[in-house]
Amino acid sequence: MSLAIIEKLAALSDKNLMDIEKAKEEGVKVAGLYCLYAPVELVVAAGAIPVSLCGTRNEPIAAAEKILPRNLCPLIKSSFGFAVTDSCPFFHASDLVIAETTCDGKKKMFELLKAYRPVHVMQLPQNQEPDKALPYWRRQIELLKERIETEFKVEITPEHLSAAIRTMNRERLALKDLMDQAKGRPSPVSGLELLTIKHRLSFLINKEEVWALLQEATEEIRQRALKGESQFTESSPRILLTGTPVGLGSEKVLRLIEESGANVVVMENCSGYKKAFRVEENGDPLGAIAAQYLQISCSCMSPNPGRYEMLGRLIEEFQVDGVIDLGWQACHTYLIESHTVQKFVEDNYQLPFLQIETDYSDADSERLRVRIEAFLEMTGQ
Amino acid sequence: MSLAIIEKLAALSDKNLMDIEKAKEEGVKVAGLYCLYAPVELVVAAGAIPVSLCGTRNEPIAAAEKILPRNLCPLIKSSFGFAVTDSCPFFHASDLVIAETTCDGKKKMFELLKAYRPVHVMQLPQNQEPDKALPYWRRQIELLKERIETEFKVEITPEHLSAAIRTMNRERLALKDLMDQAKGRPSPVSGLELLTIKHRLSFLINKEEVWALLQEATEEIRQRALKGESQFTESSPRILLTGTPVGLGSEKVLRLIEESGANVVVMENCSGYKKAFRVEENGDPLGAIAAQYLQISCSCMSPNPGRYEMLGRLIEEFQVDGVIDLGWQACHTYLIESHTVQKFVEDNYQLPFLQIETDYSDADSERLRVRIEAFLEMTGQ
Repeated sequence: MSLAIIEKLAALSDKNLMDIEKAKEEGVKVAGLYCLYAPVELVVAAGAIPVSLCGTRNEPIAAAEKILPRNLCPLIKSSFGFAVTDSCPFFHASDLVIAETTCDGKKKMFELLKAYRPVHVMQLPQNQEPDKALPYWRRQIELLKERIETEFKVEITPEHLSAAIRTMNRERLALKDLMDQAKGRPSPVSGLELLTIKHRLSFLINKEEVWALLQEATEEIRQRALKGESQFTESSPRILLTGTPVGLGSEKVLRLIEESGANVVVMENCSGYKKAFRVEENGDPLGAIAAQYLQISCSCMSPNPGRYEMLGRLIEEFQVDGVIDLGWQACHTYLIESHTVQKFVEDNYQLPFLQIETDYSDADSERLRVRIEAFLEMTGQ
Repeated sequence: MSLAIIEKLAALSDKNLMDIEKAKEEGVKVAGLYCLYAPVELVVAAGAIPVSLCGTRNEPIAAAEKILPRNLCPLIKSSFGFAVTDSCPFFHASDLVIAETTCDGKKKMFELLKAYRPVHVMQLPQNQEPDKALPYWRRQIELLKERIETEFKVEITPEHLSAAIRTMNRERLALKDLMDQAKGRPSPVSGLELLTIKHRLSFLINKEEVWALLQEATEEIRQRALKGESQFTESSPRILLTGTPVGLGSEKVLRLIEESGANVVVMENCSGYKKAFRVEENGDPLGAIAAQYLQISCSCMSPNPGRYEMLGRLIEEFQVDGVIDLGWQACHTYLIESHTVQKFVEDNYQLPFLQIETDYSDADSERLRVRIEAFLEMTGQ
C-alpha cells in the first residue's frame, strides 16, 4: 500500500543533481534559498535555478557547534554545518545564497556564512503593517532584484516576473491540492507520506516536472481514497502540527505522532500550509511579490495575526482533534508565541494542545512518545 | 576608602520614589524604558518622566518562567518577572512602556507585556545603512512622538526636542567624564564602583540632580587620584568587559574579575561606554535623534561595524590587557557575534580573550572564578 510516487521521487534525486551540474556547465546560475520569505519568483525570472538548501539533518550539527553556540536552533546549526562541511550539494552549487533577517540566530549565522559563499541578506521588517513595513520590504525586494541582475549578469523584466509568478502560483496551487487530500475522513494519506513527497520535490529544479509530479502524487492519493484505502480509521485522532518547519531528518515528532496511532492531517508551518499562498498575477509584479511574501505568518513577526487566522481555518477545514506546537530548541519566537497559540486553540476551539520543544537528535524520543500518547488520549477519539 | 557618593546615592533611592509618586499625583506622566535604543529625548521633551525599568535581578525570574521559556536570556525573564509580580516600582509607575524589536526574545515578550501596561513597540531595523534603514527608523521615531503626544496629551515641539537633546547630551558627557576616570594607571576607581554609581543614577528622575551627582562622583574620584589612592597597582590586569548589559544584581562576572585582582577599566556595553554618545544639537532634532540612536552598536545589528570601532578605540584609550565578552544565556546575537569579536581582538591587538555565557544565578560562580583566574594569568600582568 506504499505510494509509487515516493519511490519515483527517490529515484529522481541523482538525476536532479546531474541536471544541476549540467546546467551549471552551460552557464546557468544557481541561487540557494533557506526560507519561505526568499521570493523564489526573482530567481525564476532571472532564468536561474532556485534550490532549497539542506538544513533538516542532525549529522552536520557537530561541525557547526565548533563555531556556533550549542544552545541554538538545530535548523540553523544544521544549515551552517552543511555549509562548513561542504556536504549539501545544493549549497555547493549555489552562486548566490539568498538570506533574510528572520530571527536572531539566522541573522548572525548569515554573517559567518559569507566566508563560504556570496550571501545576499534581505532586511525583513518585524511586522506586516502595509503603510509602514511594506515600502521597506518592497525596497528589499528591489535590492535583491538588483543583486541578482548584477551577480548573474541578466535583466529581470516585469514580463519575466509575471511569468515567474504564474509558474510559482501553479506549483503552489498543485501543492495545496496535494495537501488537501488529507481532508478526507479517514485521510487516505499519512502526514509522513505527504512530508516525504513535499521534501523530495522541494529539491527538484525542473518546474514543469515538479508540477507534473505534484499532480501525479495527488492523483495517486485520490485513487487510494476512491478505493477506500487508508491506514487510518474514522476514529484516528486528527492532529494539526504547527510551529517550526519540519523536513526529512527532522520529522521525529511527526513520526512519533503517527506511530502512536494519530494522523497529522495538516501542518501549519513553513513546510506545510504556509507554502500554499498565491501572489497576485495582475498589476505591478514586484509590488505583488512584496505584499504577498510580507504576509507569511512567521513568529518572527510581531504581532503575527495571520497565524491565528490560518490556524482557525485549518482546524475547521481539516476537522482537527488536537493541536501540537513544535518549537525547535532555543527558537525564542515560536517558543514564546506558543503561550498565545495555546490560549487561542483552547479558548476558541476547546481542543487539547501540546507544546513540544526538541532538537534533531533521538535522545528524547521515548520521553516524547510517552507525552504524545498521553496527549492523544485527551483528544477523545 | 569607600566613595561617599555611593552612600549618598543609596540614600536618595526612597526620596526618588516619593518624587515620582508626588509628580504623578500632580498629573505628570511617566514613561518606562528598557533599552538604549529608546530615545529618552522624546520623553523629556514631552515634559514626562523617563524611568529605567528593572531587569537586572534574579529574584523575579521564577515568576517569569511560568509563562516564558526557561531557556531565555535572564534580562528578558527578569524584566518580565518584575512586571508580572508588580515588584518594580518604576514599571508600576509607568503610564507607557517604550519597547523596541531589538531581539527575538524581547520582541515576543513585549507582546505578552501588553496585558500589564500600555506598550509602544518601535520597529528597529536590523542594520544601520543610512539610505535604507534610516528613513524607516526615522518614521518609527515620529510614530513614537505621535504616541507620546496622544497618550500624554501634550505637544512635542522642535524647541522642546532641541532642549531635551542638550539636557541629555550634557548628562551623557558627564557620564563619559566619570567613566574616563578609569583611564588612570592605576585606575583610581573599580569597575564595581563605577557600575554602582551608574546603576543607582539611572533610576533618578531629576535631570539637574543627576548631572550634579555625576560631576560630584567624578570629582571625588579625581581627588582620590590626586592623592594617589587606588585599590589597584600598576600591574593589575586592566580588563575591557564587552557584550550584554550589566547592572546591580547581574554584576557577577564583573565582581569575579575584580575579586581575582584585575580591574574592569571599561565596559563596551549598554551599561557602559555605548551610553556615552552625543546627538547633534543643530538642525532637525528628530532627524538627529534617529541618526544617532540607529548608530548604537548592538549585536542585533547585522552587520555591526560600530562595535569593532568602539572596541579598538577603548582598548587603546584604556590601555587594556585582556577582553572578556559576556553573553547572557541564550542571547543568540551576542553569543554568535563573539566569534567575530574574538578574531578581531586577537588579530588586531594580540590580547587574550575570554567568552563567558551565564545567567543571573550564582550556580556557576566558582566555576567561573577558576576560568577567570586562569584567564588573568594570560594577560601577562
